[in-house]
Amino acid sequence: MVPFKRENAKKRLSGMMSRAEREEFITIMLNDVVNTLLQSEADRVMVLSRTPAGTEHMPQEVEVMLSDKDLNGSINEDLLPTVGEPLIIVMADMPLLKAQNINDVLRMDGDIVLCPGRKGGTNLMYLREPKKFRTAYHGLSFMEHLRRAQEMGMKTEIYDSFYVSADIDEEEDLVELLLHGKGSGSREYLERRGFRLRTENGYVGVERV
Amino acid sequence: MVPFKRENAKKRLSGMMSRAEREEFITIMLNDVVNTLLQSEADRVMVLSRTPAGTEHMPQEVEVMLSDKDLNGSINEDLLPTVGEPLIIVMADMPLLKAQNINDVLRMDGDIVLCPGRKGGTNLMYLREPKKFRTAYHGLSFMEHLRRAQEMGMKTEIYDSFYVSADIDEEEDLVELLLHGKGSGSREYLERRGFRLRTENGYVGVERV
Repeated sequence: MVPFKRENAKKRLSGMMSRAEREEFITIMLNDVVNTLLQSEADRVMVLSRTPAGTEHMPQEVEVMLSDKDLNGSINEDLLPTVGEPLIIVMADMPLLKAQNINDVLRMDGDIVLCPGRKGGTNLMYLREPKKFRTAYHGLSFMEHLRRAQEMGMKTEIYDSFYVSADIDEEEDLVELLLHGKGSGSREYLERRGFRLRTENGYVGVERV
Repeated sequence: MVPFKRENAKKRLSGMMSRAEREEFITIMLNDVVNTLLQSEADRVMVLSRTPAGTEHMPQEVEVMLSDKDLNGSINEDLLPTVGEPLIIVMADMPLLKAQNINDVLRMDGDIVLCPGRKGGTNLMYLREPKKFRTAYHGLSFMEHLRRAQEMGMKTEIYDSFYVSADIDEEEDLVELLLHGKGSGSREYLERRGFRLRTENGYVGVERV
């Protein structure tokens, strides 16, 4: 399952992208993630979205659930109570995700599997029994999810992946997408829009030409 | 094998650490990496250092090779031509490295295994036949190493790990060490020196108190 919010998304990219571009970019990243999930061994793929906007052109097999609550509200109140089978929650802004990552996680035997994002985020969460858990996204969510799982006595595993950790929030994160995102729609989008790597004194950044 | 340069190391941390502190910090990170290697299934552990400084208190089983050339020079001219068995090169500034990462890589069957660091770096490299390869560290080394390996027709694998990708170069990288480095000497060092996580508007940074 991929939670999705298009409206005014990726504000920290405002210095390099207009609002319309940011909304287009997050939609393309969502498509990359959804396509990866469809290639994986996951049985079903669902997008949990604030609004229909951005989900109209999903492949037909993708289920779209609408909820206008915030991220934790929509997951905890509208989704988790209804899910009777194991669930993977992945963020829409990790276009480097590989089908292998999903397959690896599906083979782990924890009650919960957590995968760290940069700066304390939780980029991927596997819940064997979704009804029993409540998420706490935002801020240092990785530590909070770990704490909740341990408090509940759940068998907890951490999945170690660079590709999953690399969510795209800040300008410098675009470096990773340009470097490692070959073949993804979101990297093509960046190239089309004039984003390029810039190396200065051995340090790598991004510029727009 | 861990290449090590202590003198005026980690310049990009100059805003938060004195030169003496940076030299102490890189030495403690080296010790974390060496201890992890000793816990892994690697047969031998070697440090390739510019000077003896910082390597005096290594565990006895660690071999120290001195070379005053630069990073690629010391590896390509002094080390690789002498190595007749498979070799893993890991950087000294990745204190989140786990013994499991090393064991995973030892079980892969590529002629070369590369593990990306943030921003195009190569944080771990496995060479089945070290004599045949020459490194090109600095800048976008990951792409250059990939290119060389493919040009030489080597069977190339990529090892996907957040812990290996998280080298400590910039102030914001300290966030990862504070968050995920529990039990490491380098995290203890940061805590002792007053480094703390700071959360503002849901964004996480580091401050020194």
